Amino acid sequence: MNKETKLKPELPLGFQDRRKEDLRSKNRLIEIVKKNFLLFGFEELETPSFEISENLGKFLPDKNRPMSGVFGFQDDKSWISLRYDLTAPLARFVSKNLDALPKPYKRFQIGSVFRNEKPGPGRFREFTQIDADIVGTTNNIADAEVCFLISDTLEKIGLKQNQFKINISNRKLIQGLFQDLSITEEKQKLIAIRAIDKLDRIEIKGVDQLLSKGRKDASGDFTKGAGLKDDQIKKILQFLKSENNLDKIKKLSSNDLFQQGISELIEIFDYLKEYSKSNNFVFTPTVVRGIEYYTGAIFEAALTEKIKNQKGDFIEFGSIGGGGRYDGLISRFKVTEYPATGISIGLDRLNYAIQQLQSQSYLNDEPIVICVIDKNKIKTCFKILDMLRKARIQSEIYSGDAGLKAQFKYADKRNSPAVIIFGDDEEKENKVSIKNLKKGKKDSVSIDSRDEWKKSDSQITVKMDQLINEIKKIL
Amino acid sequence: MNKETKLKPELPLGFQDRRKEDLRSKNRLIEIVKKNFLLFGFEELETPSFEISENLGKFLPDKNRPMSGVFGFQDDKSWISLRYDLTAPLARFVSKNLDALPKPYKRFQIGSVFRNEKPGPGRFREFTQIDADIVGTTNNIADAEVCFLISDTLEKIGLKQNQFKINISNRKLIQGLFQDLSITEEKQKLIAIRAIDKLDRIEIKGVDQLLSKGRKDASGDFTKGAGLKDDQIKKILQFLKSENNLDKIKKLSSNDLFQQGISELIEIFDYLKEYSKSNNFVFTPTVVRGIEYYTGAIFEAALTEKIKNQKGDFIEFGSIGGGGRYDGLISRFKVTEYPATGISIGLDRLNYAIQQLQSQSYLNDEPIVICVIDKNKIKTCFKILDMLRKARIQSEIYSGDAGLKAQFKYADKRNSPAVIIFGDDEEKENKVSIKNLKKGKKDSVSIDSRDEWKKSDSQITVKMDQLINEIKKIL
Repeated sequence: MNKETKLKPELPLGFQDRRKEDLRSKNRLIEIVKKNFLLFGFEELETPSFEISENLGKFLPDKNRPMSGVFGFQDDKSWISLRYDLTAPLARFVSKNLDALPKPYKRFQIGSVFRNEKPGPGRFREFTQIDADIVGTTNNIADAEVCFLISDTLEKIGLKQNQFKINISNRKLIQGLFQDLSITEEKQKLIAIRAIDKLDRIEIKGVDQLLSKGRKDASGDFTKGAGLKDDQIKKILQFLKSENNLDKIKKLSSNDLFQQGISELIEIFDYLKEYSKSNNFVFTPTVVRGIEYYTGAIFEAALTEKIKNQKGDFIEFGSIGGGGRYDGLISRFKVTEYPATGISIGLDRLNYAIQQLQSQSYLNDEPIVICVIDKNKIKTCFKILDMLRKARIQSEIYSGDAGLKAQFKYADKRNSPAVIIFGDDEEKENKVSIKNLKKGKKDSVSIDSRDEWKKSDSQITVKMDQLINEIKKIL
Repeated sequence: MNKETKLKPELPLGFQDRRKEDLRSKNRLIEIVKKNFLLFGFEELETPSFEISENLGKFLPDKNRPMSGVFGFQDDKSWISLRYDLTAPLARFVSKNLDALPKPYKRFQIGSVFRNEKPGPGRFREFTQIDADIVGTTNNIADAEVCFLISDTLEKIGLKQNQFKINISNRKLIQGLFQDLSITEEKQKLIAIRAIDKLDRIEIKGVDQLLSKGRKDASGDFTKGAGLKDDQIKKILQFLKSENNLDKIKKLSSNDLFQQGISELIEIFDYLKEYSKSNNFVFTPTVVRGIEYYTGAIFEAALTEKIKNQKGDFIEFGSIGGGGRYDGLISRFKVTEYPATGISIGLDRLNYAIQQLQSQSYLNDEPIVICVIDKNKIKTCFKILDMLRKARIQSEIYSGDAGLKAQFKYADKRNSPAVIIFGDDEEKENKVSIKNLKKGKKDSVSIDSRDEWKKSDSQITVKMDQLINEIKKIL
């Protein structure tokens, strides 16, 4: 490479760096989530980022174009791809280890997923998902358990009961309606389900258009519709507009699948009533979720409070996670039936929402900085450092080469609560000076000399054995 | 896809799943590491898995073949690659954010790195690295700080002082020797350094061969040597065999670079002496590290105790981490000098070593399982579940469809400390039965009926309000 031409230190589009503030909040969420998932009896699993491409197929957003949307490489024997979600790897893992796993198998996984899609504002090509699933049972207890889990976890993270709800429905309702209305083509059904899934954004008029011939969005792009007939559309819209009441909606259709969906929902809500904080589980017929593979109950956790977006406008944030029952889980690998139900939360999205909703900040303390003003006294500085760290106080010796002023600037930039000075005067009296930066934040940047500094009232000089106590007072 | 042909639920070669035991130990390590790195004043950074391929170049193991060994994709504008280590992303990040960062900038990062290499036993294509670096200073305090950090962290993880040492040297020693011996060709130097780096494995005879014409290994593969002359080789071997004593080795060469390396080491060891537990920092002239970009001090943390490998043989495990000073860090991006020093630890390797060295296990408790023997009483089961979880006891209702015997088998497979039963008898007296599985592990699997079970002495029946206390006794 030509030495004159310097490289540009940029990231590829759709990826981002995260620094401390962001990570503190993210780490805090992960810690609470893990603890709570264990509390609920889920065990942790970690699968690698890569899977054999063929094994991801069914779980891709569009199974007609299996390799679009993923990062794939030609490997020695086959194509391998970065995982698109955490469900496909679970299916592979369960199929591989069927005999060794308890049945039902309850696992959670937290990890990066990758999408090779066109990035946009707030849409990244790598992000963290949190998944919890119960595999190997058709029992509705499992569905209720997953609803408990997401609700309880959101509360433990710090959301109040009135800030979110868990919308619950059953894929069998809409599938039953399709049977009633003689809608049999898989492609039509999928387009219809995806249209309904967009209801929040495109409203009932937009759904109407997408069930019919199609819809032109604000940018002028046209999306082809499901091509349903007017009377079919009318019946579906009637269902979507109906009251959130299981007893009433039960009368909408006598179709077997539909009635089975209703019964399952009644059972699930029966269980949910026993949960001590049960007032935010809501039957919501408009919840269908856009992914193809759901077969039964479906859940969606949604914020009920508007929050600020990146531009500063208050918007409906909507879903922060969801899932459902998908009983065809491992039929690609095994002949055995192996039903499953689960939820998925987008950690980065949740993190953003939480930061907006909560006024508290979760900043840790930054390290105490021991300034170096005299290289001959550096050994004592190291002794002080050792004392501080033994007392579990975040601390460091300034490790750069600049003078005192730059050292204060450094401590200031790091948001240090205090700096420590050990010079001639201190040495004579076996003392040490502490400057409280929380108090004297403004001074410290403008002070040039050691003498000026001594005059400032945010500085104290204490005996060496008082140091830890004084620092603790500041913290 | 043909429905008859089931897919094979396999992983691509070189990747692995991790289940709970492994993850518990790994999570514990990460928790201790993070806490300690913060204690030392390092802040966390998270960069994405992908970088623009060109920006990784210098940090690849072989810069003559920049794309070998990595997973790369053709993106819209350029090639992008999964990161090979955490140093190249740091260089890019620092260059991009120079003005916003404190100077020096101390960061740590824990994350997956990817190598598209031929997998082998214990060699994976995705693994976790822990890196800590101090960027923007040539001060030897920074090098000492990094040595403190790795030593202190290994102790906090649970290693004893006599189980590891930190070998320290300086790349300037061998580079000074090369000057002395008129070895000027970069390629020759690199081959020589890599040969010395293999000393532990191939012994002095192997190094001799690799400095000369080349070496045939046990499998018959021939590696071409550096082609040095006999007198050059003699001088290098003399250096490698010399005593671990800075004062003595100082006399080996009057070369400026060599002497500068010695002075830096003397200063670093001066600082290290002030550390309260300083007896495992050792000057070791044979430590050179095989990576090209080091420019000054180099460090290597090595186990001093033999440990069992996967086959069960006790072997020298060697290095569990290391690093050094690399002052050319961002010269690819900026004209400014921006020196740096740091360490890198392979988490999975460390985790393996720790598990072998420590007899304690870090198993958490598994959940209490509430068995379901009567569907009509399931509401009370949920109330019990809610009580348990409020008391922060890991717990769940059996969510499968099988009978009591299968439920016991399930609890057994999960290693549950106890199961809870609520049937007719219990309901009449407002009581609940607890079976202590720690006590009655063997019985539980062979018991078929509720009656047999009642006779076993590991079962107790208690009032509902005594439940939590009794469970706590078992735990």
